[in-house]
Amino acid sequence: MEMNSVNHQIRLAARPSALPVPSDWELTTEPVPVPGPGEFVVGVSHLSVDPAMLRWINGRSSDSAPVAIGAVMEAGAAGQVTASEHPGFGVGEHVYGAFGVQEFARSDGTGVTKLDPLLAPLPTYLGALGTTGMTAYFGLLDIGRLSEIDTVVVSGAAGAVGSVAGQIAKIEGCRVIGIAGGPKKCRWITEDLGFDAAIDYKSQDVARALEKHAPGGVDVFFDNVGGEILDAVLTRLARGARIVLSGGVSQYGAHQDRGPANYLRLIGARASMTGFIAPDYADRYAEARAELAGWLREGRLVSREDIHQGGIEAFPDALLKLFAGENTGKLVLAVP
Amino acid sequence: MEMNSVNHQIRLAARPSALPVPSDWELTTEPVPVPGPGEFVVGVSHLSVDPAMLRWINGRSSDSAPVAIGAVMEAGAAGQVTASEHPGFGVGEHVYGAFGVQEFARSDGTGVTKLDPLLAPLPTYLGALGTTGMTAYFGLLDIGRLSEIDTVVVSGAAGAVGSVAGQIAKIEGCRVIGIAGGPKKCRWITEDLGFDAAIDYKSQDVARALEKHAPGGVDVFFDNVGGEILDAVLTRLARGARIVLSGGVSQYGAHQDRGPANYLRLIGARASMTGFIAPDYADRYAEARAELAGWLREGRLVSREDIHQGGIEAFPDALLKLFAGENTGKLVLAVP
Repeated sequence: MEMNSVNHQIRLAARPSALPVPSDWELTTEPVPVPGPGEFVVGVSHLSVDPAMLRWINGRSSDSAPVAIGAVMEAGAAGQVTASEHPGFGVGEHVYGAFGVQEFARSDGTGVTKLDPLLAPLPTYLGALGTTGMTAYFGLLDIGRLSEIDTVVVSGAAGAVGSVAGQIAKIEGCRVIGIAGGPKKCRWITEDLGFDAAIDYKSQDVARALEKHAPGGVDVFFDNVGGEILDAVLTRLARGARIVLSGGVSQYGAHQDRGPANYLRLIGARASMTGFIAPDYADRYAEARAELAGWLREGRLVSREDIHQGGIEAFPDALLKLFAGENTGKLVLAVP
Repeated sequence: MEMNSVNHQIRLAARPSALPVPSDWELTTEPVPVPGPGEFVVGVSHLSVDPAMLRWINGRSSDSAPVAIGAVMEAGAAGQVTASEHPGFGVGEHVYGAFGVQEFARSDGTGVTKLDPLLAPLPTYLGALGTTGMTAYFGLLDIGRLSEIDTVVVSGAAGAVGSVAGQIAKIEGCRVIGIAGGPKKCRWITEDLGFDAAIDYKSQDVARALEKHAPGGVDVFFDNVGGEILDAVLTRLARGARIVLSGGVSQYGAHQDRGPANYLRLIGARASMTGFIAPDYADRYAEARAELAGWLREGRLVSREDIHQGGIEAFPDALLKLFAGENTGKLVLAVP
């Protein structure tokens, strides 16, 4: 394994209130870290680029402290151990962890998972077999209390979590309607992923389209988007509907969040809206990963990763790509 | 029993988009109805005046069809049978039903409950022993899944449902904080009803006050109000909090509803917001009413009715009184 002599890093230089601009980031160069006793160093090959990152930097996450100014940007990443003084992690092993937006990361193994590159390519461990897949899996099955008679609607349906969520609902026997932006994404989710219907929110009235595709109402809404799409689905809830609140990407780039004006529809529908995050289910990840890997192997589940090239320096652009709706599937930044 | 010869009624003359104005109503006079076979006639003595009425007339209720233009305004009411051709209801019996805003109503007994005036005064059957009490009881215990270690916050805490909900939570052993408008209401809920603390939303910053009164966060929020109060409580949720969505009176008089901008806090708190209506629990009303009547008898529960005088003609004013926040406890219109 060839070693670089320097480690490039993207650090947060200023706290954006909406979408970050180039001056909010700083590219720094340091020597590649050397592991101390009980530590190892990972050469990062693939970085996870996630909508929630915007909340981590703008200080509006209610879930965790914001990334500090001057700190390496946080990110989940996959890579290979390049040096080790840790008895449990040997050079050459493939691992996943919160390594941050940098080429090399030092770790004591906390929260690090070993990956099997023969079972699935590394980017898939950021997609269907990673936090992305876990969010879809536990959100639908646990929070959404999915049953096969349900009509399920997924927003951000061509995105990382949404595309997996919709496929899981299909595997479970549900009728599945995806909401996505543009004909290309809509074709992908119906033709390649097997969704029963797609609604293009850029050209269609979502509430009206739901009247057609979900005439009995929506039993489970897996929402990554919020905003007008959430408001439209709120008008089409079936009695006892469950809204699984996974995220609100339409609001992350806004200066101020906009609440769902139709939230009182929850009363008439006797419906619930419940927030969750996947890491609460960490002790059940192995079970979920085994099931998801089985579906992947059988070809019933497609994990699509949209690999953005350009290395660490390209991270700021890759993040903006998410909010422009330009990715299909899981956005991954390749680090050469 | 003395009989009037005419029956006064309040009918909906026009559909208001916000708070109704006098010209939205019409006072009509008809002969007192005569019961046909299997029917009886009720002389109404007490009308329930409810925030939800505004949704019934402005067509923004997702729960039921709006009151038709020209129809007698819908209302729950208590009264006494004045004439009967029904074997199950005798003249002089006290009953509750959806008799509408009129002095006399004809009924075939559907949805009508007999009342025992020796157990509790008739207005109490519109308050703690009526739909008001049922909403508080099932909302907290069933939707809120109340446990004695919970910190409970109630909005509209000096109102009909809120004042009962807070007292039930106290009886169940919870710490209870009420949010109400003005020092008089705040004193009433703490001094007379035994709430642990009151927050006057007219003079206090609700989020800051909750930091003081609920330092560990809010486990159950029983919300009748919505708007800024809901947004404030969303910032103070404990992990796993349950928001019981009973109503949104702050929005009923608005031309357009305003959604809770902080709804994404449900994710960080792994919290839920669930809508419900009491009539879904109709088959358990008897059980709930027995328990509430026991608490009333023991003096552990206070049912306060704010009796508005003036008869049928005073209904439009009584309804506006609710939205001006002028009532304390259950607003009841007395019909002489």
